[in-house]
Amino acid sequence: MVDEAPARQLFCARTGDREVDAAAAAARRVVDALVRAGECDPGTAERLDEIADAIEKHAGSVVARIAAMWTGGFPRHDPVTGPENPIAPPLVLEAREGTTVGGEVTLGMAYQGPPGCVHGGVSALLLDHTLGVANGRAGQVGFTGELTVRYHRPAPLFEPLTVSARQVGVDGRKIRTEGSITTADGTVCVSARGLFITPQDR
Amino acid sequence: MVDEAPARQLFCARTGDREVDAAAAAARRVVDALVRAGECDPGTAERLDEIADAIEKHAGSVVARIAAMWTGGFPRHDPVTGPENPIAPPLVLEAREGTTVGGEVTLGMAYQGPPGCVHGGVSALLLDHTLGVANGRAGQVGFTGELTVRYHRPAPLFEPLTVSARQVGVDGRKIRTEGSITTADGTVCVSARGLFITPQDR
Repeated sequence: MVDEAPARQLFCARTGDREVDAAAAAARRVVDALVRAGECDPGTAERLDEIADAIEKHAGSVVARIAAMWTGGFPRHDPVTGPENPIAPPLVLEAREGTTVGGEVTLGMAYQGPPGCVHGGVSALLLDHTLGVANGRAGQVGFTGELTVRYHRPAPLFEPLTVSARQVGVDGRKIRTEGSITTADGTVCVSARGLFITPQDR
Repeated sequence: MVDEAPARQLFCARTGDREVDAAAAAARRVVDALVRAGECDPGTAERLDEIADAIEKHAGSVVARIAAMWTGGFPRHDPVTGPENPIAPPLVLEAREGTTVGGEVTLGMAYQGPPGCVHGGVSALLLDHTLGVANGRAGQVGFTGELTVRYHRPAPLFEPLTVSARQVGVDGRKIRTEGSITTADGTVCVSARGLFITPQDR
Protein backbone atom coordinates (compact mmCIF):
# COMPACT_ATOMS: atom_id res chain seq x y z
CA MET A 1 0.00 0.00 0.00
CA VAL A 2 1.31 3.37 -1.00
CA ASP A 3 0.73 6.40 1.20
CA GLU A 4 -0.68 9.28 -0.73
CA ALA A 5 0.22 12.82 0.22
CA PRO A 6 -2.86 14.72 1.41
CA ALA A 7 -4.20 17.22 -1.15
CA ARG A 8 -2.76 20.67 -0.57
CA GLN A 9 -5.26 23.46 -0.05
CA LEU A 10 -3.59 26.47 -1.64
CA PHE A 11 -4.22 30.03 -0.46
CA CYS A 12 -2.77 31.66 -3.55
CA ALA A 13 -3.02 31.31 -7.32
CA ARG A 14 -1.52 28.11 -8.68
CA THR A 15 1.27 28.34 -11.27
CA GLY A 16 -0.29 26.80 -14.35
CA ASP A 17 0.68 25.87 -17.88
CA ARG A 18 -0.04 29.34 -19.25
CA GLU A 19 2.62 31.00 -21.39
CA VAL A 20 2.60 34.04 -19.08
CA ASP A 21 3.45 31.88 -16.04
CA ALA A 22 6.36 30.30 -17.93
CA ALA A 23 7.51 33.74 -19.11
CA ALA A 24 7.35 35.11 -15.55
CA ALA A 25 9.42 32.14 -14.35
CA ALA A 26 11.98 32.78 -17.08
CA ALA A 27 12.01 36.51 -16.26
CA ARG A 28 12.81 35.56 -12.63
CA ARG A 29 15.86 33.72 -14.02
CA VAL A 30 16.89 36.88 -15.90
CA VAL A 31 16.51 38.97 -12.73
CA ASP A 32 18.53 36.50 -10.68
CA ALA A 33 21.24 36.15 -13.34
CA LEU A 34 21.69 39.93 -13.68
CA VAL A 35 22.12 40.37 -9.92
CA ARG A 36 24.40 37.32 -9.63
CA ALA A 37 26.60 38.26 -12.59
CA GLY A 38 26.60 42.05 -12.33
CA GLU A 39 27.45 42.14 -16.03
CA CYS A 40 26.17 40.83 -19.34
CA ASP A 41 26.89 40.74 -23.07
CA PRO A 42 26.39 43.84 -25.22
CA GLY A 43 22.95 43.72 -26.81
CA THR A 44 21.24 42.15 -23.79
CA ALA A 45 19.21 45.28 -23.10
CA GLU A 46 18.06 45.48 -26.74
CA ARG A 47 16.92 41.85 -26.70
CA LEU A 48 14.97 42.41 -23.47
CA ASP A 49 13.46 45.63 -24.85
CA GLU A 50 12.23 43.73 -27.94
CA ILE A 51 10.55 41.16 -25.70
CA ALA A 52 8.97 43.94 -23.62
CA ASP A 53 7.70 45.61 -26.81
CA ALA A 54 6.08 42.33 -27.92
CA ILE A 55 4.42 41.70 -24.54
CA GLU A 56 3.15 45.28 -24.33
CA LYS A 57 1.14 44.67 -27.52
CA HIS A 58 -1.05 42.34 -25.44
CA ALA A 59 -1.75 45.00 -22.79
CA GLY A 60 -5.12 46.72 -22.84
CA SER A 61 -6.10 49.69 -20.72
CA VAL A 62 -4.89 49.84 -17.14
CA VAL A 63 -8.47 50.28 -15.89
CA ALA A 64 -9.69 47.16 -17.71
CA ARG A 65 -6.70 45.14 -16.52
CA ILE A 66 -7.18 46.17 -12.89
CA ALA A 67 -10.85 45.24 -13.11
CA ALA A 68 -9.96 41.84 -14.60
CA MET A 69 -7.46 41.15 -11.82
CA TRP A 70 -10.22 40.85 -9.22
CA THR A 71 -12.82 38.77 -10.98
CA GLY A 72 -12.62 35.95 -8.46
CA GLY A 73 -10.14 33.50 -7.07
CA PHE A 74 -6.74 34.43 -5.80
CA PRO A 75 -4.89 37.22 -7.63
CA ARG A 76 -2.32 36.05 -10.18
CA HIS A 77 -0.28 39.25 -10.28
CA ASP A 78 0.73 40.26 -6.72
CA PRO A 79 4.43 40.76 -5.85
CA VAL A 80 4.55 37.94 -3.28
CA THR A 81 2.59 34.94 -4.57
CA GLY A 82 1.65 35.97 -8.11
CA PRO A 83 2.66 33.42 -10.78
CA GLU A 84 2.43 36.21 -13.41
CA ASN A 85 4.68 38.61 -11.48
CA PRO A 86 8.45 38.07 -11.82
CA ILE A 87 9.03 40.14 -8.67
CA ALA A 88 7.20 37.46 -6.64
CA PRO A 89 9.59 34.64 -5.58
CA PRO A 90 6.74 33.27 -5.76
CA LEU A 91 5.73 32.21 -2.27
CA VAL A 92 3.18 29.37 -2.40
CA LEU A 93 0.83 29.63 0.58
CA GLU A 94 -1.27 26.71 1.73
CA ALA A 95 -3.47 25.69 4.64
CA ARG A 96 -1.53 24.60 7.70
CA GLU A 97 -2.67 23.48 11.15
CA GLY A 98 -5.70 25.26 12.59
CA THR A 99 -6.26 28.48 10.68
CA THR A 100 -2.57 29.03 9.88
CA VAL A 101 -1.45 29.64 6.31
CA GLY A 102 2.17 29.09 5.37
CA GLY A 103 4.65 28.15 2.74
CA GLU A 104 8.32 27.46 2.08
CA VAL A 105 10.42 29.77 -0.06
CA THR A 106 14.10 29.94 -0.95
CA LEU A 107 15.29 33.42 -1.85
CA GLY A 108 18.17 34.26 -4.15
CA MET A 109 20.47 37.21 -4.49
CA ALA A 110 17.88 39.62 -5.89
CA TYR A 111 16.29 39.68 -2.41
CA GLN A 112 19.53 40.38 -0.55
CA GLY A 113 19.99 42.96 2.21
CA PRO A 114 23.05 42.28 4.42
CA PRO A 115 25.63 39.99 2.80
CA GLY A 116 24.08 36.56 2.22
CA CYS A 117 20.87 37.51 4.04
CA VAL A 118 17.34 38.47 3.13
CA HIS A 119 16.67 42.22 2.92
CA GLY A 120 14.70 43.26 6.02
CA GLY A 121 12.16 45.01 3.83
CA VAL A 122 11.64 41.85 1.77
CA SER A 123 10.86 39.96 5.00
CA ALA A 124 8.33 42.70 5.81
CA LEU A 125 6.81 42.34 2.32
CA LEU A 126 6.41 38.56 2.65
CA LEU A 127 4.93 38.85 6.15
CA ASP A 128 2.54 41.68 5.31
CA HIS A 129 1.11 39.63 2.47
CA THR A 130 0.92 36.38 4.45
CA LEU A 131 -0.87 38.07 7.36
CA GLY A 132 -3.48 39.35 4.90
CA VAL A 133 -3.96 35.87 3.43
CA ALA A 134 -4.32 34.44 6.96
CA ASN A 135 -7.18 36.90 7.53
CA GLY A 136 -8.78 35.61 4.35
CA ARG A 137 -8.59 32.03 5.60
CA ALA A 138 -10.02 33.02 9.00
CA GLY A 139 -12.96 34.66 7.28
CA GLN A 140 -12.60 38.29 8.34
CA VAL A 141 -10.34 40.57 6.31
CA GLY A 142 -9.40 44.23 6.55
CA PHE A 143 -7.02 46.92 5.48
CA THR A 144 -3.65 46.97 7.21
CA GLY A 145 -3.63 49.65 9.90
CA GLU A 146 -0.26 48.90 11.46
CA LEU A 147 2.41 46.29 10.86
CA THR A 148 5.20 45.71 13.38
CA VAL A 149 8.12 43.57 12.26
CA ARG A 150 10.75 42.30 14.71
CA TYR A 151 14.11 41.13 13.45
CA HIS A 152 15.48 38.42 15.75
CA ARG A 153 18.36 37.23 13.53
CA PRO A 154 19.26 37.55 9.87
CA ALA A 155 17.21 35.31 7.56
CA PRO A 156 19.57 33.45 5.23
CA LEU A 157 19.38 33.44 1.43
CA PHE A 158 19.71 30.15 -0.50
CA GLU A 159 17.95 27.91 2.03
CA PRO A 160 14.29 27.07 2.62
CA LEU A 161 12.45 29.51 4.87
CA THR A 162 8.94 29.00 6.19
CA VAL A 163 6.64 32.03 6.11
CA SER A 164 3.44 31.54 8.10
CA ALA A 165 0.69 33.54 9.77
CA ARG A 166 -2.59 33.18 11.60
CA GLN A 167 -5.32 35.44 12.89
CA VAL A 168 -5.11 35.67 16.69
CA GLY A 169 -8.03 37.90 17.60
CA VAL A 170 -11.00 39.89 16.37
CA ASP A 171 -12.53 42.76 18.35
CA GLY A 172 -15.33 44.33 16.32
CA ARG A 173 -13.66 45.78 13.23
CA LYS A 174 -10.15 45.31 14.65
CA ILE A 175 -8.27 42.20 13.61
CA ARG A 176 -4.96 41.03 15.11
CA THR A 177 -2.79 38.68 13.11
CA GLU A 178 0.69 37.30 13.72
CA GLY A 179 3.30 35.63 11.58
CA SER A 180 6.92 34.61 11.34
CA ILE A 181 9.76 33.60 9.07
CA THR A 182 11.68 30.57 10.32
CA THR A 183 14.52 28.41 9.08
CA ALA A 184 14.08 24.67 8.50
CA ASP A 185 15.04 23.86 12.11
CA GLY A 186 12.32 26.18 13.44
CA THR A 187 14.55 29.10 14.40
CA VAL A 188 12.57 32.34 14.22
CA CYS A 189 14.37 34.96 12.14
CA VAL A 190 11.61 37.54 11.79
CA SER A 191 8.22 37.89 13.46
CA ALA A 192 5.37 40.27 12.71
CA ARG A 193 2.09 41.35 14.18
CA GLY A 194 -0.49 43.28 12.30
CA LEU A 195 -3.55 45.33 13.17
CA PHE A 196 -6.12 45.24 10.41
CA ILE A 197 -9.35 47.23 10.19
CA THR A 198 -12.47 45.83 8.52
CA PRO A 199 -14.28 48.47 6.42
CA GLN A 200 -17.58 49.62 7.95
CA ASP A 201 -19.66 48.38 5.04
CA ARG A 202 -18.68 44.74 5.49
CA MET B 1 21.87 84.76 -15.95
CA VAL B 2 20.69 81.18 -15.89
CA ASP B 3 19.96 79.50 -12.57
CA GLU B 4 21.74 76.22 -12.27
CA ALA B 5 20.20 73.37 -10.32
CA PRO B 6 22.30 72.55 -7.26
CA ALA B 7 24.31 69.35 -7.59
CA ARG B 8 22.39 66.38 -6.16
CA GLN B 9 24.11 64.41 -3.44
CA LEU B 10 22.95 60.86 -4.02
CA PHE B 11 22.65 58.30 -1.22
CA CYS B 12 22.47 55.31 -3.52
CA ALA B 13 24.35 53.94 -6.52
CA ARG B 14 23.92 55.99 -9.68
CA THR B 15 22.50 54.32 -12.80
CA GLY B 16 25.39 54.47 -15.24
CA ASP B 17 26.09 53.60 -18.85
CA ARG B 18 26.95 49.98 -18.05
CA GLU B 19 25.28 47.28 -20.11
CA VAL B 20 23.99 45.62 -16.92
CA ASP B 21 22.18 48.81 -15.88
CA ALA B 22 20.52 49.04 -19.30
CA ALA B 23 19.62 45.35 -19.17
CA ALA B 24 18.10 45.75 -15.70
CA ALA B 25 16.05 48.71 -16.97
CA ALA B 26 14.84 46.63 -19.92
CA ALA B 27 14.07 43.70 -17.59
CA ARG B 28 11.90 46.09 -15.52
CA ARG B 29 9.94 46.77 -18.72
CA VAL B 30 9.49 42.99 -19.21
CA VAL B 31 8.25 42.62 -15.61
CA ASP B 32 5.82 45.52 -15.98
CA ALA B 33 4.57 44.34 -19.37
CA LEU B 34 3.90 40.78 -18.13
CA VAL B 35 1.86 42.05 -15.17
CA ARG B 36 0.02 44.62 -17.28
CA ALA B 37 -0.80 42.23 -20.13
CA GLY B 38 -1.31 38.98 -18.20
CA GLU B 39 -0.51 37.15 -21.42
CA CYS B 40 2.19 36.95 -24.08
CA ASP B 41 3.15 35.27 -27.35
CA PRO B 42 4.15 31.60 -27.41
CA GLY B 43 7.94 31.36 -27.25
CA THR B 44 8.37 34.29 -24.87
CA ALA B 45 9.56 32.05 -22.05
CA GLU B 46 12.11 30.37 -24.33
CA ARG B 47 13.51 33.73 -25.44
CA LEU B 48 13.83 34.89 -21.84
CA ASP B 49 15.43 31.57 -20.82
CA GLU B 50 18.03 32.00 -23.58
CA ILE B 51 18.89 35.46 -22.27
CA ALA B 52 19.12 34.12 -18.71
CA ASP B 53 21.45 31.33 -19.93
CA ALA B 54 23.71 33.91 -21.60
CA ILE B 55 23.85 36.18 -18.52
CA GLU B 56 24.51 33.23 -16.20
CA LYS B 57 27.74 32.54 -18.13
CA HIS B 58 29.07 35.79 -16.61
CA ALA B 59 28.29 34.69 -13.04
CA GLY B 60 31.16 33.50 -10.86
CA SER B 61 30.81 31.94 -7.44
CA VAL B 62 28.20 33.30 -5.08
CA VAL B 63 30.84 33.86 -2.39
CA ALA B 64 33.04 35.93 -4.71
CA ARG B 65 30.08 37.93 -5.95
CA ILE B 66 28.85 38.71 -2.44
CA ALA B 67 32.36 39.83 -1.46
CA ALA B 68 32.55 42.08 -4.54
CA MET B 69 29.20 43.69 -3.73
CA TRP B 70 30.60 45.42 -0.65
CA THR B 71 33.91 46.74 -1.87
CA GLY B 72 32.96 50.35 -1.24
CA GLY B 73 30.41 52.87 -2.32
CA PHE B 74 26.70 52.27 -2.35
CA PRO B 75 25.53 48.77 -3.30
CA ARG B 76 24.40 48.38 -6.93
CA HIS B 77 22.28 45.29 -6.41
CA ASP B 78 19.74 45.89 -3.61
CA PRO B 79 16.00 45.42 -4.29
CA VAL B 80 15.10 49.08 -3.60
CA THR B 81 17.73 51.37 -5.14
CA GLY B 82 19.97 48.95 -7.04
CA PRO B 83 20.47 49.91 -10.71
CA GLU B 84 21.50 46.28 -11.41
CA ASN B 85 18.40 44.78 -9.78
CA PRO B 86 15.22 44.70 -11.90
CA ILE B 87 13.12 44.22 -8.74
CA ALA B 88 14.19 47.70 -7.58
CA PRO B 89 11.91 50.42 -9.03
CA PRO B 90 14.68 51.87 -8.57
CA LEU B 91 14.21 54.50 -5.89
CA VAL B 92 16.88 57.22 -6.19
CA LEU B 93 17.69 58.58 -2.73
CA GLU B 94 19.40 61.93 -2.26
CA ALA B 95 20.26 64.37 0.50
CA ARG B 96 17.33 66.50 1.59
CA GLU B 97 17.02 69.18 4.29
CA GLY B 98 18.96 68.58 7.50
CA THR B 99 19.91 64.92 7.69
CA THR B 100 16.88 63.67 5.74
CA VAL B 101 17.30 61.41 2.74
CA GLY B 102 14.52 61.09 0.21
CA GLY B 103 13.51 60.48 -3.33
CA GLU B 104 10.55 60.37 -5.71
CA VAL B 105 9.33 57.14 -7.25
CA THR B 106 6.37 56.20 -9.43
CA LEU B 107 5.33 52.57 -9.07
CA GLY B 108 3.60 50.49 -11.72
CA MET B 109 1.37 47.48 -11.63
CA ALA B 110 4.04 44.99 -10.54
CA TYR B 111 3.99 46.68 -7.11
CA GLN B 112 0.21 46.53 -6.70
CA GLY B 113 -1.66 45.47 -3.58
CA PRO B 114 -5.26 46.73 -3.42
CA PRO B 115 -6.66 47.73 -6.84
CA GLY B 116 -4.66 50.69 -8.18
CA CYS B 117 -2.65 51.02 -4.97
CA VAL B 118 0.82 50.14 -3.75
CA HIS B 119 1.10 46.79 -1.92
CA GLY B 120 1.44 47.48 1.81
CA GLY B 121 4.47 45.21 1.94
CA VAL B 122 6.15 47.14 -0.87
CA SER B 123 5.68 50.34 1.14
CA ALA B 124 7.32 48.57 4.08
CA LEU B 125 10.20 47.47 1.83
CA LEU B 126 10.83 51.01 0.55
CA LEU B 127 10.65 52.49 4.06
CA ASP B 128 12.85 49.86 5.71
CA HIS B 129 15.56 50.56 3.15
CA THR B 130 15.24 54.34 3.31
CA LEU B 131 15.42 54.35 7.12
CA GLY B 132 18.68 52.39 6.87
CA VAL B 133 20.11 54.86 4.36
CA ALA B 134 19.10 57.76 6.63
CA ASN B 135 21.15 56.15 9.41
CA GLY B 136 24.08 56.03 7.01
CA ARG B 137 23.77 59.73 6.29
CA ALA B 138 23.50 60.56 10.01
CA GLY B 139 26.72 58.62 10.65
CA GLN B 140 25.54 55.86 12.97
CA VAL B 141 24.14 52.68 11.46
CA GLY B 142 22.81 49.44 12.89
CA PHE B 143 20.82 46.32 12.25
CA THR B 144 17.04 46.69 12.20
CA GLY B 145 15.59 45.55 15.51
CA GLU B 146 11.99 46.55 14.97
CA LEU B 147 10.11 48.31 12.19
CA THR B 148 6.61 49.66 12.71
CA VAL B 149 4.68 50.72 9.63
CA ARG B 150 1.41 52.67 9.87
CA TYR B 151 -0.95 52.78 6.94
CA HIS B 152 -2.87 56.06 6.91
CA ARG B 153 -4.40 55.80 3.43
CA PRO B 154 -3.68 53.78 0.30
CA ALA B 155 -0.61 54.95 -1.65
CA PRO B 156 -1.53 55.28 -5.33
CA LEU B 157 0.24 53.60 -8.21
CA PHE B 158 1.11 55.59 -11.36
CA GLU B 159 1.86 58.92 -9.64
CA PRO B 160 4.99 60.33 -7.99
CA LEU B 161 5.43 59.37 -4.36
CA THR B 162 8.09 60.80 -2.05
CA VAL B 163 9.85 58.33 0.22
CA SER B 164 11.93 60.01 2.93
CA ALA B 165 13.48 59.28 6.31
CA ARG B 166 15.70 60.79 8.98
CA GLN B 167 17.37 59.66 12.16
CA VAL B 168 15.54 61.16 15.15
CA GLY B 169 17.55 59.91 18.11
CA VAL B 170 20.53 57.92 19.31
CA ASP B 171 20.78 56.43 22.81
CA GLY B 172 23.97 54.41 23.11
CA ARG B 173 23.63 51.56 20.63
CA LYS B 174 19.92 52.24 20.04
CA ILE B 175 19.00 54.32 17.03
CA ARG B 176 15.52 55.67 16.28
CA THR B 177 14.65 56.61 12.73
CA GLU B 178 11.41 57.74 11.11
CA GLY B 179 10.14 57.97 7.57
CA SER B 180 7.10 58.38 5.37
CA ILE B 181 5.62 57.94 1.93
CA THR B 182 3.70 60.98 0.74
CA THR B 183 1.89 62.03 -2.43
CA ALA B 184 2.95 65.13 -4.38
CA ASP B 185 0.64 67.38 -2.31
CA GLY B 186 2.27 66.22 0.92
CA THR B 187 -0.46 63.83 2.06
CA VAL B 188 1.05 61.08 4.22
CA CYS B 189 0.02 57.62 3.00
CA VAL B 190 2.38 55.48 5.07
CA SER B 191 4.69 56.29 7.97
CA ALA B 192 7.31 54.16 9.66
CA ARG B 193 9.51 54.22 12.69
CA GLY B 194 12.44 51.94 13.19
CA LEU B 195 14.59 50.84 16.09
CA PHE B 196 18.11 49.94 14.98
CA ILE B 197 20.88 48.42 17.08
CA THR B 198 24.53 49.24 16.47
CA PRO B 199 26.77 46.14 16.79
CA GLN B 200 28.95 46.17 19.90
CA ASP B 201 32.24 46.17 17.98
CA ARG B 202 31.53 49.49 16.24
